[in-house]
Amino acid sequence: MWQLLQFPLCPFSRKVRLLLSEKGVGYEPVRESPWARRDEFLDLNPAGQTPVMVDVERGVTLIDSMAICEYFEETVDKAAMLNGTAADRAEIRRLVTWFDTHFFREITGPLLLERMEKRIVHRLPPDTRALRDAMKAAVEHLDYIDYLLDHRAWLGGATMSLADLAAAAQISVADYLGGIDWKTHTTAKRWYVGMKSRPSFRPLLAERMEGVAPPPDYEKLDL
Amino acid sequence: MWQLLQFPLCPFSRKVRLLLSEKGVGYEPVRESPWARRDEFLDLNPAGQTPVMVDVERGVTLIDSMAICEYFEETVDKAAMLNGTAADRAEIRRLVTWFDTHFFREITGPLLLERMEKRIVHRLPPDTRALRDAMKAAVEHLDYIDYLLDHRAWLGGATMSLADLAAAAQISVADYLGGIDWKTHTTAKRWYVGMKSRPSFRPLLAERMEGVAPPPDYEKLDL
Ligand SMILES: N[C@@H](CCC(=O)N[C@@H](CS)C(=O)NCC(=O)O)C(=O)O
Ligand SMILES: N[C@@H](CCC(=O)N[C@@H](CS)C(=O)NCC(=O)O)C(=O)O
Repeated sequence: MWQLLQFPLCPFSRKVRLLLSEKGVGYEPVRESPWARRDEFLDLNPAGQTPVMVDVERGVTLIDSMAICEYFEETVDKAAMLNGTAADRAEIRRLVTWFDTHFFREITGPLLLERMEKRIVHRLPPDTRALRDAMKAAVEHLDYIDYLLDHRAWLGGATMSLADLAAAAQISVADYLGGIDWKTHTTAKRWYVGMKSRPSFRPLLAERMEGVAPPPDYEKLDL
Repeated sequence: MWQLLQFPLCPFSRKVRLLLSEKGVGYEPVRESPWARRDEFLDLNPAGQTPVMVDVERGVTLIDSMAICEYFEETVDKAAMLNGTAADRAEIRRLVTWFDTHFFREITGPLLLERMEKRIVHRLPPDTRALRDAMKAAVEHLDYIDYLLDHRAWLGGATMSLADLAAAAQISVADYLGGIDWKTHTTAKRWYVGMKSRPSFRPLLAERMEGVAPPPDYEKLDL
């Protein structure tokens, strides 16, 4: 049985969880708070980051959300999430990296610091300017999603792909932390409601991070 | 014919160039300075980063060094760089991300800012404290490379892989910028001299970045 070391608001773990659920791979979620810098966790992953997956029986440890996703893409045929030609696959991977690095650095990362880590670890108020910057960046990213969806059925191309899972994972955490204003982004909103209504998404939306409450509309399917 | 948009000290472009050369894929290097934020370049890659590869005839644009490497790994059999079982491949990908994100963030990125960008773009002296921090971080990363090589023939496992190319690419740029002190790291040094002597590496070592000179030993094979 796979174990997935993660915490409820880790967007990279959410991407992996969406993929595992779409593919029908069972796993046991194990709570890990990377900010605690637990020695055994650092021994497992010198980068000190979630997600990490461990299968004790098989003696396999998987580290880094992209490496984890590629692993299950290679080993489980069901619900292929890197479809198409090599060029199509490159476009999907580009977008996964786009959301994992740019969206995370400008939006999810700052929101997690200001609204989660400062509250539960440092007991400090959030920096309102950093919050404002993150929310401004979110508008630009939603514009880009609108633009992509004006040209394609799904973010990465003609079919649902890892790009959609990566984007929805980041957005869901940003949304939980009050960073997303859906006004004017009708196209992105319709796509996101579609993602939210998937069975793979429902368990994520039901989870709560201790001490941090989501906005009232967070779980709603009619935004 | 593929074009590769890059500049001589971009470590991600170096990783791609090593891969292309090992695989025998021809390409034309095209100079791009991401800090210039050229409009046509931003239209091509909204992330504004090098490397980007373009094949005009085939109408293919590849963005992000990992997506580019996966593309050529999928389309060119020669010199496979993601070898072994799915778990072996996951370990290689973990290490590529390790060098591309952690080594870059702590070492190559700060050195590029302090010793290249500040000099040629802002005409400012480097921050000596940032340089010291980067050089300290380099010692820890070389320790980790020593540790990996105590357990394996190559960084990612039993065969040369993309992990070696990613690490050598980052190290070569850090070395150009005077950030690497090889003292005491005998194992890492032996591995790096092996990488440096590969035909794929020689052209990179011969290139110069305008206004930034490497240390005298930079090209030497007997460190
Ligand atoms: N490249 C990694 C990034 C993972 C990541 O940044 N995880 C965050 C939690 S959301 C973390 O562990 N941060 C703690 C740290 O970076 O020290 C992946 O895709 O898995
Ligand atoms: N994830 C990207 C990172 C590329 C990257 O950071 N490139 C640097 C040059 S070494 C760059 O273009 N920086 C300019 C910027 O980030 O604005 C890749 O692997 O290709």
